[in-house]
Amino acid sequence: MNAEIIAVGSELLTPQRIDTNSLWLTDQLNELGVEVVTKIVAGDDRARLSVHLAAALARSDMVLITGGLGPTEDDVTRDAVAVTLGRKLEFRQDICDIIEARFKRMSRTMAEINRRQAFVIEGAGVLDNDRGTAPGLWLESEGRLVVLLPGPPNEMKAMFSGQCRAKLVARLPALAIRTLQLRVAGMPESDVDQLIAPVYTQYTNPVTTILAAPSDIQIHLRARCETAYEASRLVAELGDRIRVLLGDRIYSDNGASLEATVGALLRARGATVCVAESATGGALAERLTSVAGSSDYFVGGFLTYTDRMKMDLLGVSPALLAEHTAVSEPVAQAMAEGARARTGAGYGVSVTGVAGPERGTDDAPVGTIIIGVASAGNAAARRFRFLGDRGRVRALAAQTALDMLRRKLLA
Amino acid sequence: MNAEIIAVGSELLTPQRIDTNSLWLTDQLNELGVEVVTKIVAGDDRARLSVHLAAALARSDMVLITGGLGPTEDDVTRDAVAVTLGRKLEFRQDICDIIEARFKRMSRTMAEINRRQAFVIEGAGVLDNDRGTAPGLWLESEGRLVVLLPGPPNEMKAMFSGQCRAKLVARLPALAIRTLQLRVAGMPESDVDQLIAPVYTQYTNPVTTILAAPSDIQIHLRARCETAYEASRLVAELGDRIRVLLGDRIYSDNGASLEATVGALLRARGATVCVAESATGGALAERLTSVAGSSDYFVGGFLTYTDRMKMDLLGVSPALLAEHTAVSEPVAQAMAEGARARTGAGYGVSVTGVAGPERGTDDAPVGTIIIGVASAGNAAARRFRFLGDRGRVRALAAQTALDMLRRKLLA
Repeated sequence: MNAEIIAVGSELLTPQRIDTNSLWLTDQLNELGVEVVTKIVAGDDRARLSVHLAAALARSDMVLITGGLGPTEDDVTRDAVAVTLGRKLEFRQDICDIIEARFKRMSRTMAEINRRQAFVIEGAGVLDNDRGTAPGLWLESEGRLVVLLPGPPNEMKAMFSGQCRAKLVARLPALAIRTLQLRVAGMPESDVDQLIAPVYTQYTNPVTTILAAPSDIQIHLRARCETAYEASRLVAELGDRIRVLLGDRIYSDNGASLEATVGALLRARGATVCVAESATGGALAERLTSVAGSSDYFVGGFLTYTDRMKMDLLGVSPALLAEHTAVSEPVAQAMAEGARARTGAGYGVSVTGVAGPERGTDDAPVGTIIIGVASAGNAAARRFRFLGDRGRVRALAAQTALDMLRRKLLA
Repeated sequence: MNAEIIAVGSELLTPQRIDTNSLWLTDQLNELGVEVVTKIVAGDDRARLSVHLAAALARSDMVLITGGLGPTEDDVTRDAVAVTLGRKLEFRQDICDIIEARFKRMSRTMAEINRRQAFVIEGAGVLDNDRGTAPGLWLESEGRLVVLLPGPPNEMKAMFSGQCRAKLVARLPALAIRTLQLRVAGMPESDVDQLIAPVYTQYTNPVTTILAAPSDIQIHLRARCETAYEASRLVAELGDRIRVLLGDRIYSDNGASLEATVGALLRARGATVCVAESATGGALAERLTSVAGSSDYFVGGFLTYTDRMKMDLLGVSPALLAEHTAVSEPVAQAMAEGARARTGAGYGVSVTGVAGPERGTDDAPVGTIIIGVASAGNAAARRFRFLGDRGRVRALAAQTALDMLRRKLLA
């Protein structure tokens, strides 16, 4: 079975914006054994979209259309699909009521134009949108499937995962698929690949895919077999061989993010944590607290962007700052200890450094980051040098701080 | 004049890879007054590519194809284009010699398969590739233009800039383009559109595009005229009419982000700011400090995830917490004031609330966010209710807090 994806939106035809929904959808479809054979980006133009859809339906079993379901004149997907399939649009009061209720919950009045979103193509199944106002639509026409999904990624993903996936599974031939996701911190992609390629290239099933974000590598294994037993066995076999090579650099094997992994370790130990951030300016705490329920172990912390704040809020001694400067191991250690003492948390993590692009020095060039970790009667700090722009240096610093805390908790 | 871009390569149909060449090409084409009306990603499949090209030629003046010019069996672009246009492929010894010489310069021997790259479609102009082995091709057919470019971005860009751009300029009518970007905080897309659509729909030139992120709307105007004077005049005219409608909801007209705009206001006033974050857990400070040079005005702050921390670190009184709970205007105000007093910053911004997905109450359901802003002798707080998952609620809270600070600085 094969599919085409059409992303609708004139903004996706500008130099500034790119369709990324199709990457996520492709991953989902591939997992179900569906191949994506063409991707199209179309503007907010009824006639052109209609031409693309007609051509796609002539070629492929399934067409997924993202975007163009909003309330404005620019949003042409419903109209264009109806015209292409030769079907009518029907106003549905029940859907209008749902949209209106959503506005009420936000203490707002529904604008008149939002009524447009309550029009449904004749014969379509409605896909509820619990994250936005635009419902999706599920249509079958002459043995082909057409699915209309909203453009905002969070709405699109929730709708596909929650509603489309099961409907697709029911249509597709049964094939057992088993996957394993190993996540690795603190190694560049090329090092990971060099280490494990000699093993995974021996297998065509499972298929191995490596996804890389700065200092966060995901190794995806996917086996497709006639039986679940065989798929499970193959994934476990290759997974175990990779585990032997990477050891404790693997921080999760269940898809959990590094911040969720650290959170689970803290919760399991009944421990609490606080932060003292300079160079990351809140990015470390933001990640720790992005996990639901993180108030069970994250108590709080300090953002100390100046020497004065490091002294006043964390009690770092003026002499230490004068002797070593703020970008030093002793100061990072004192920051982590100071945060611990002032919050009463079991663990304290600090980040200081030079995120750039300016204000580097000979001793601490741009990209220098010192990370401290303190626990009862114990504190240590490590110096790193990260390359890249300000955003990348800060992201690498937060990632590395989380990984140091993870290793401390495991030790 | 309009154009379509076809990116060729099966790897661009996987979940891991995306075509970014088209962004750069779109920028180049727009600058010449050429509009990109469709983008297609096609796999390494002769028949499919041929269908896409034939359809594109029927619709548009110009088709740019990137990729698929390599030496392997997988590289099908030359073949597919020749078949679609009904032309022959001719082996060109002079091009083969150039490729062979390139290998020699790298002290390597040309593989036999590289001879495939010396085939040229009948009637095509050859575009030299000084960064790789695959020459590009420039074809005219029945008034339409077809340009074949290599896939590697550095090769594609050098070939377009060095050879295609001048050829295109010579074909195109002279056109001047002027743009304006207005950014708006604190309004949903539908409200912005309802307000300004009656005005911008009166203009087909400039073209208006609206991009929406949570509580952050970008309005792009682009005018294309025979003279720069006329294009500037039209953009200014429509821009001014939109400004009248949106007033101070527009936070920037030069592409600056909200955090950069707030930073510029603080710097212009010689003012400093601190934060006290509960529900956002660092997300507000992370945005403020994502701007290079933010240490000029951001001094630091407090992350107070528990009542205890709000008391110990910020001096919020136990009685106030007991009477109103942590998710209340009086506590948000006290947090902002406490942070100001402890850091000495001129402005204090606080965020408290329930980001979810759990721990909502009747008085403060999930999504309730209170934002406080304090300055010398003055403090205020506002209550909001945001819908969405934890990440979205936190992002909306940080965005709204930045906008409240901006309005305070403008007041």
